[in-house]
Amino acid sequence: MKKLFEESLQEVLAQSASAAPTPGGGSVSAIAGAFGAAMVAMVGNLTVGKEKYKDVEPEVKELLAQSNQLMKELEELVQADIDAFNNYMDVFKMAKNTEEEKALRAEALQKAAIAATDVPLRIGEATIKGLQVAQKMAALGNKVAISDVGVGAYLGEAALKGALLSVDINIPVIKDQAYVEKAVAKRDELIAEAEALRSKAVEVVKERI
Amino acid sequence: MKKLFEESLQEVLAQSASAAPTPGGGSVSAIAGAFGAAMVAMVGNLTVGKEKYKDVEPEVKELLAQSNQLMKELEELVQADIDAFNNYMDVFKMAKNTEEEKALRAEALQKAAIAATDVPLRIGEATIKGLQVAQKMAALGNKVAISDVGVGAYLGEAALKGALLSVDINIPVIKDQAYVEKAVAKRDELIAEAEALRSKAVEVVKERI
Repeated sequence: MKKLFEESLQEVLAQSASAAPTPGGGSVSAIAGAFGAAMVAMVGNLTVGKEKYKDVEPEVKELLAQSNQLMKELEELVQADIDAFNNYMDVFKMAKNTEEEKALRAEALQKAAIAATDVPLRIGEATIKGLQVAQKMAALGNKVAISDVGVGAYLGEAALKGALLSVDINIPVIKDQAYVEKAVAKRDELIAEAEALRSKAVEVVKERI
Repeated sequence: MKKLFEESLQEVLAQSASAAPTPGGGSVSAIAGAFGAAMVAMVGNLTVGKEKYKDVEPEVKELLAQSNQLMKELEELVQADIDAFNNYMDVFKMAKNTEEEKALRAEALQKAAIAATDVPLRIGEATIKGLQVAQKMAALGNKVAISDVGVGAYLGEAALKGALLSVDINIPVIKDQAYVEKAVAKRDELIAEAEALRSKAVEVVKERI
């Protein structure tokens, strides 16, 4: 089977819109995050090699490398999200006739719910890195395209908030209260950080437009 | 040449990240808006035909049709954004040796700047329609996937705000002050409306998770 990123954009959109279980909200959020990182990378590519931005070139090159790395990471996280979701679906199909089967299924369900919570948290962490890069690029990147860093920041924040809705869905299933508390705290921390980073990045972008 | 939506997702991301002039921020914002509409459509597709949601099926079918329509509209707007940008670049290459050439170029530049402002405003109007549909779907769609309406709302808002940064870039070039005032008022109105709609949609989603 073709991997999702090898499908045409049109096909990926059609699959997203269909009743097919994947790609779901976590994956689509990660794709949006990858587009956000791509915008920051574009501004990097339009800055490197320009005489006017020679002084900041080493730093911009580093930010560009981080954006490219992040795009790869988000692509992997899309696959991780799809895998976690498919695994969840498999668990639902497990037999529950005997007490032993019921116990095995309940245990597998807990593991699947935790995995399906971990992946969006990792998408959140990845997009935070993207927003940190966007904030720095906003100040250093080529003014000619600086608005596109703002696009990257808006998409990063939306990707993070969208992905983290999957945390909200999964935690009611999870019995390990210590894990739930940690996940909720992480979710809230990531959201607050994303809002602050996007706000700063867009502010700098608007000053430089 | 292959159309952008026929390229693989990987290729579209690579083109977005490259120094190539298109797709730029307006186009990528519209793509994100299309993914947002796809999420709302997915929830529609997971609602239609389900016994539990039989009472709301006619309304959900209508919302689903609107989401599908919006995805097409945003695809067209991506192309319009690319065309407007390429046209802008062509104008910059126009000769400016004689007074007549200078006058022709200046006039073409004004038209190009207005076109490059109109397209993001149309992307904004399209994503507002998407957010209106998301808000309604949040209340009616299948609870099992309702968080994905939230993903759609976050992406719609980000798409709108990202696209409208292109208004900020172009208005300093435009001499027609009546147009500028109208464009700025429209931009501010769309942003306020998007925030209100996303906020309401996500609120309903969170209540139903």
